[in-house]
Amino acid sequence: MDTAGTIGQFAKMLQNMDRWLAAGVAFAEKKKFDPDVLVQSRLAPDQYALDRQIQAGCDAAKYAAAYLSGQTAPSHPDTEKTIAELRKRIQTCVAYLESVKPTQYAGAVERKVAPAWLQGKWFAAPDYLAQLAIPNFYFHAAMTYAILRHNGVELGKMDYIGSMPVHDA
Amino acid sequence: MDTAGTIGQFAKMLQNMDRWLAAGVAFAEKKKFDPDVLVQSRLAPDQYALDRQIQAGCDAAKYAAAYLSGQTAPSHPDTEKTIAELRKRIQTCVAYLESVKPTQYAGAVERKVAPAWLQGKWFAAPDYLAQLAIPNFYFHAAMTYAILRHNGVELGKMDYIGSMPVHDA
Repeated sequence: MDTAGTIGQFAKMLQNMDRWLAAGVAFAEKKKFDPDVLVQSRLAPDQYALDRQIQAGCDAAKYAAAYLSGQTAPSHPDTEKTIAELRKRIQTCVAYLESVKPTQYAGAVERKVAPAWLQGKWFAAPDYLAQLAIPNFYFHAAMTYAILRHNGVELGKMDYIGSMPVHDA
Repeated sequence: MDTAGTIGQFAKMLQNMDRWLAAGVAFAEKKKFDPDVLVQSRLAPDQYALDRQIQAGCDAAKYAAAYLSGQTAPSHPDTEKTIAELRKRIQTCVAYLESVKPTQYAGAVERKVAPAWLQGKWFAAPDYLAQLAIPNFYFHAAMTYAILRHNGVELGKMDYIGSMPVHDA
């Protein structure tokens, strides 16, 4: 279980998400609509809109870092109403992720993860990370991307993946 | 880098995806439409439809298992035209993932991953897994879910996550 690497990858993806939002703003300017219209866009009437997708993605990353380093997660209230505020929320989350030092994840593999909603029950840390935190984080990242793409924002798969460290032959 | 655990999680998610497709068929029967209409549904005109999302998700998992165990990936041609065929494709992929023994991933962390499209360049295995294979796999899983949800198929977040090993207090 590479906890520090996974949290670092979440931070990278969150910066990718920030760039997708910037692309959304650029698209709105080009098409002359209010970019904040995108904030309440959703793919199904009973699914989260863009704002909640980003808030939930940030929280998935934040709680993983907190649980696996034995900290109490900082409170980041879901008050964002604009693209600009959502981009700030992303940066607040990334700053928290980067505040946790890799050494603070020592022994993470042995932790019991007991979110309040489990009412005293718990997950073994490797199960929590691989089967809940990672799929949940990518769910909200992909839905953020999908809502923007569905609205015509000019994004492609490499914007989703972001930069990759490639080595020469 | 927990390669065997990650591939096992891909197999679990693929079985979740199979259940989402079964829910799509059930929804089509209830609403009296041909379930294979869903196969060509997409969220944006220049994005993959459901068939390619599932094929690409399967391939992301298959190539990860093959590259990281030092095998040549089996060929699974993208010929599926129906939900039934897509469900079979998922099971073919899962059977391959399960055919690779955890011991075959010994030393995976040191491997150089050189897909043909990199033209001789390569990724270090941990970068490939964390920054490409995992986000790419979940992208296609989440798009599969999103296309079905967008069409009204009755799915919720716990169908996405699937079963979780929970321990009593």
